[in-house]
Amino acid sequence: MPKVILSHDDLESKRKEFYTYHNTFIEELLSYPGISGDLSEVVDWWRRAFEHSLTDGQMNRGFSAYLTAVTLAEQGGKLTDDFKRSAAALGYALEVLRESFLIEEDIVNKSETRRGRPCWYRVDGVSMMAINDAGVMESFAHELIKFHCEANKNYEKILEIYEDSQLKALAGYTADVLFESKRSTTFLDECKFSRYRKIAEFKTVYPNIYCPVLAGMLLAGEDNENKIEECGKILVALGEYLQARDDCCSDATKTGESIMNGKCSWQLVKALELVNKTQRKVLEENYGKASSECVNRVTAVFKDLNIWDEFKAYEKKALIEFHDMINASSVGETVSTLLQTILKLSK
Amino acid sequence: MPKVILSHDDLESKRKEFYTYHNTFIEELLSYPGISGDLSEVVDWWRRAFEHSLTDGQMNRGFSAYLTAVTLAEQGGKLTDDFKRSAAALGYALEVLRESFLIEEDIVNKSETRRGRPCWYRVDGVSMMAINDAGVMESFAHELIKFHCEANKNYEKILEIYEDSQLKALAGYTADVLFESKRSTTFLDECKFSRYRKIAEFKTVYPNIYCPVLAGMLLAGEDNENKIEECGKILVALGEYLQARDDCCSDATKTGESIMNGKCSWQLVKALELVNKTQRKVLEENYGKASSECVNRVTAVFKDLNIWDEFKAYEKKALIEFHDMINASSVGETVSTLLQTILKLSK
Repeated sequence: MPKVILSHDDLESKRKEFYTYHNTFIEELLSYPGISGDLSEVVDWWRRAFEHSLTDGQMNRGFSAYLTAVTLAEQGGKLTDDFKRSAAALGYALEVLRESFLIEEDIVNKSETRRGRPCWYRVDGVSMMAINDAGVMESFAHELIKFHCEANKNYEKILEIYEDSQLKALAGYTADVLFESKRSTTFLDECKFSRYRKIAEFKTVYPNIYCPVLAGMLLAGEDNENKIEECGKILVALGEYLQARDDCCSDATKTGESIMNGKCSWQLVKALELVNKTQRKVLEENYGKASSECVNRVTAVFKDLNIWDEFKAYEKKALIEFHDMINASSVGETVSTLLQTILKLSK
Repeated sequence: MPKVILSHDDLESKRKEFYTYHNTFIEELLSYPGISGDLSEVVDWWRRAFEHSLTDGQMNRGFSAYLTAVTLAEQGGKLTDDFKRSAAALGYALEVLRESFLIEEDIVNKSETRRGRPCWYRVDGVSMMAINDAGVMESFAHELIKFHCEANKNYEKILEIYEDSQLKALAGYTADVLFESKRSTTFLDECKFSRYRKIAEFKTVYPNIYCPVLAGMLLAGEDNENKIEECGKILVALGEYLQARDDCCSDATKTGESIMNGKCSWQLVKALELVNKTQRKVLEENYGKASSECVNRVTAVFKDLNIWDEFKAYEKKALIEFHDMINASSVGETVSTLLQTILKLSK
């Protein structure tokens, strides 16, 4: 098998290829039998919802699925235009599902904007109809996979991973919100790494990394269950690191928000492992409060504890472990290259 | 084949049988792998959401599926405990899906109560988290069907009817809300029976009648496509009549609400066929306005036009047509009895 190199140009050209399916899929979905002809104002409304929600964004989740499937098929000499279309549909479905979650998340969090534009439910005349639109997107995501991947021999396994990830994402999100809503001093007792990892895994890893890569592998015909399982474990490890990095490397505004919202972030959990009594008291009294003074006090504790150096040490260790896991596994060179690419994509 | 008689007692005992699965299914869903052990507060939260939403209610949608599947299997001499459990799971899934829709519908409509209790999103501490809970219920409904019916030879066809009905219900609901939100005098131009029928079909008939009965038939092993299709047409006709009856036979409060909300009801559409210019002007000026005076003016026009007598005439004709359709069809005696029972159930 030839050595796999995914160059920057190669990645960019595959990404452009993935984007070219955008309009085709939107039109396909909007021509759903029975709706397009008779309920044209419904179609117009959904088109607005789709166009508002599915523009911008890197679409890394969907692209990971496309990249995995297409690269593996290419390596196996089985890449056809039909296959590309199936892979794009799978990736696109993951994006549509993601947007459906984001529409709802924005309502739950009372957010104002997303990607510099008003959230869909904030658009004039939309309001809570956005909930219905999110449901439609979820159904459509399912339709896309069904229509384009049903003939694949691993179709049922793909659906299983897709549905399981979706339910786990909902569970992770529920855990996160329940946690934030506690806002009592005792909630810090529950901020432990075992819990942090579980929520990160459910809320982020399954839908964003685990499902796209494994579903892409399955679509490309992978049927070695051990390989799928090994790869899943590496993806969970990778995903936990990416979540920690996302928590720790976000800008000051986002860090401030996560402190105000009482988020169970990597830096909070680490801090709680290291604090003395006085520092813990500062966290108890200031974490999760909507005041910039409280944020400053919490940030000062983080600084005293060298939390960002702690993160760098963790990062170094996590990346070595990640590469060790890949090297010790039987996933093979192509998958190994893909996993390293996914890591870079998420930067 | 023995003559099928579904006596009142028989129906009641089957209904009780269906209800007995309630706790089993709730516990089964809440023990979803990976969630039950590690995220116990999520499970507790979901239990509250389930128990709040899935109590009371006749569960006619779910019971129709159970009744159809079990009666057909009984007639075919293939009724086992395992089959009963599958049929109950199918019916229960339809109920869980329905509750998920109602949770969201209550938010969109800003409703206060449902079945005499606060809507789930109005319960203390819930608020917009209800959207997430509705998503969980939807996923769980799917899980129930999958877990209990996957081995059935018609599993894929059952899923197809289920998913198609779900998307059509969303489309019907969107059409309804878009319509109500127009609130201009020109919206009356669109109130025609062709449109009324389409929305009723999508919003009510597919999820409440069409899907339960046909999925029940498929579960019982029906594989004659003509019979399924014929039965589908009869169910659509039946469902349209039931929607019209629901519109016209609701109490004064509900009638008042539907006038205030500018609902495209059977009586409005009929009235628009019969009005003179003066009466139409009254409707244009008063329909869809939140005032009891406006409601009274609209109701007076309906009375002048003898709308309720018109409905009785329509009802007589619709029921004759329904029985003629059954008699002319090849659905057979058991299905024919079932269809007539469904009609009675919905009273």
